[in-house]
Amino acid sequence: MNRKELINLIKEKQSYLCVGLDSDIEKIPQCLMKEEDPVFSFNKRIIDATLPYTIAYKPNLAFYESQGIKGLISLKKTMDYLKDKRKECFVIADAKRGDIGNTSKQYAKAFLSNQGDYDFDALTVAPYMGKDSVSPFLTYENKWVVLLALTSNEGAADFQYFESKNNLQLFEKVIITSQQWGTEDNLMFVCGATKAEKFIDIRLLAPHHFLLVPGVGAQGGSLKEVSKYGLNTDCGLIVNSSRGIIFADNGEDFDKVAKEKAMQMQIEMKSYLKAI
Amino acid sequence: MNRKELINLIKEKQSYLCVGLDSDIEKIPQCLMKEEDPVFSFNKRIIDATLPYTIAYKPNLAFYESQGIKGLISLKKTMDYLKDKRKECFVIADAKRGDIGNTSKQYAKAFLSNQGDYDFDALTVAPYMGKDSVSPFLTYENKWVVLLALTSNEGAADFQYFESKNNLQLFEKVIITSQQWGTEDNLMFVCGATKAEKFIDIRLLAPHHFLLVPGVGAQGGSLKEVSKYGLNTDCGLIVNSSRGIIFADNGEDFDKVAKEKAMQMQIEMKSYLKAI
Repeated sequence: MNRKELINLIKEKQSYLCVGLDSDIEKIPQCLMKEEDPVFSFNKRIIDATLPYTIAYKPNLAFYESQGIKGLISLKKTMDYLKDKRKECFVIADAKRGDIGNTSKQYAKAFLSNQGDYDFDALTVAPYMGKDSVSPFLTYENKWVVLLALTSNEGAADFQYFESKNNLQLFEKVIITSQQWGTEDNLMFVCGATKAEKFIDIRLLAPHHFLLVPGVGAQGGSLKEVSKYGLNTDCGLIVNSSRGIIFADNGEDFDKVAKEKAMQMQIEMKSYLKAI
Repeated sequence: MNRKELINLIKEKQSYLCVGLDSDIEKIPQCLMKEEDPVFSFNKRIIDATLPYTIAYKPNLAFYESQGIKGLISLKKTMDYLKDKRKECFVIADAKRGDIGNTSKQYAKAFLSNQGDYDFDALTVAPYMGKDSVSPFLTYENKWVVLLALTSNEGAADFQYFESKNNLQLFEKVIITSQQWGTEDNLMFVCGATKAEKFIDIRLLAPHHFLLVPGVGAQGGSLKEVSKYGLNTDCGLIVNSSRGIIFADNGEDFDKVAKEKAMQMQIEMKSYLKAI
């Protein structure tokens, strides 16, 4: 999906919500455990319930890899299920990959190629190894790198605020430097909702780029604050909620409750979109 | 495998060689392509040929993930094949994972748990997200985190040399800070062979930790230089070679050539070990 299509999708649905498919087998409703593939059944029902209110899905690979090969089969089935819905949603592999150039090229093939098992629209990438670790992901047409800049977790403070002689912090350096590698059409940044006040600085450095924002909900970030400081004239935000939607209820009607939660966020987002 | 066992293995084999199983399907010998699982057949023959000369194997996940689910089946079969050889070699998943604590816990389960598909001894981890992204990997007994510090690629310069007001570079900050999270018994650092002169500084910061050293061979690093500056009294080095060994020849006798290359490195290493 290209930038224009993404912006149109946001306008159509009046939403910039991403549902995180962090489908932990230990947390999915008991009623699904009799199904042949409980994780896929769970994802399918979550997708059916939330699709009108969300513009993106973001499976985090860790929750699939922890189940070994059968977990990845659940992920592949989920991507196959999404195949005829790809104009209605942007799909991000939250995998935080990155390696030397030769090797990143293999990861790019794994996640972004339409010849592979998944064919995602975007992949989260860790910046630590620099240009040649990121560039191979930027060669796929209409596909995106979502580069970690300022993450939502407590440990973000350990290195991301590391400050240079000229008062530049590492996450700012990442945002500045990586704009030499990618453009607003293929590069986004991860900026955690738990650091909403930082969005002012981030928007000075990257006024037009899309930001993927985790940390709303279970991690404590505020949608209102993030929207206030992060929205630009093209929207420019994709705000993710995982646990707050998919595990809002663990009874038989878990999908109805997820739908309700997604709809509530979409209604709130619609009000913020009106103001831009 | 714990530290003592690893040191004993190095002493027994008089080697600190790691063979990188970066088994790119496009580079493995043509003669294997008729096999049911060419990648597994390749790994098996490489392992059989090199085991006397190497103390570790390091499959890089990218080369398996790029083949989708069938690539991961090849990896699992390789790990199963290594099962009765685990006292003779240390096995590292080169996966460069790392996520918020809740999620890293899932990756740890995927790679380090003996209940999972793989049961590796160690996993490479990216430091960008800080403490809670690394700590979950440190909770498995006799298992190791190999944290990226100074990598072997050109892009390493983009952020790893980022320098603070008090002249500390990011890779040094990573080495210092992470020693509050793990010990010499469960934490190693990735330090690229292409930066051998930096090993002097690194050894000041981490005199006793094991260093995993990629970049010898195809990437241009020198075993002699790395050994000169990196060896400590317990050896303290695991030097990886991937392409230089496994793809040294692509004929029917590829494994004999790989054996020869591994043996040459082991002989050189033996001479350096004598001096410590």
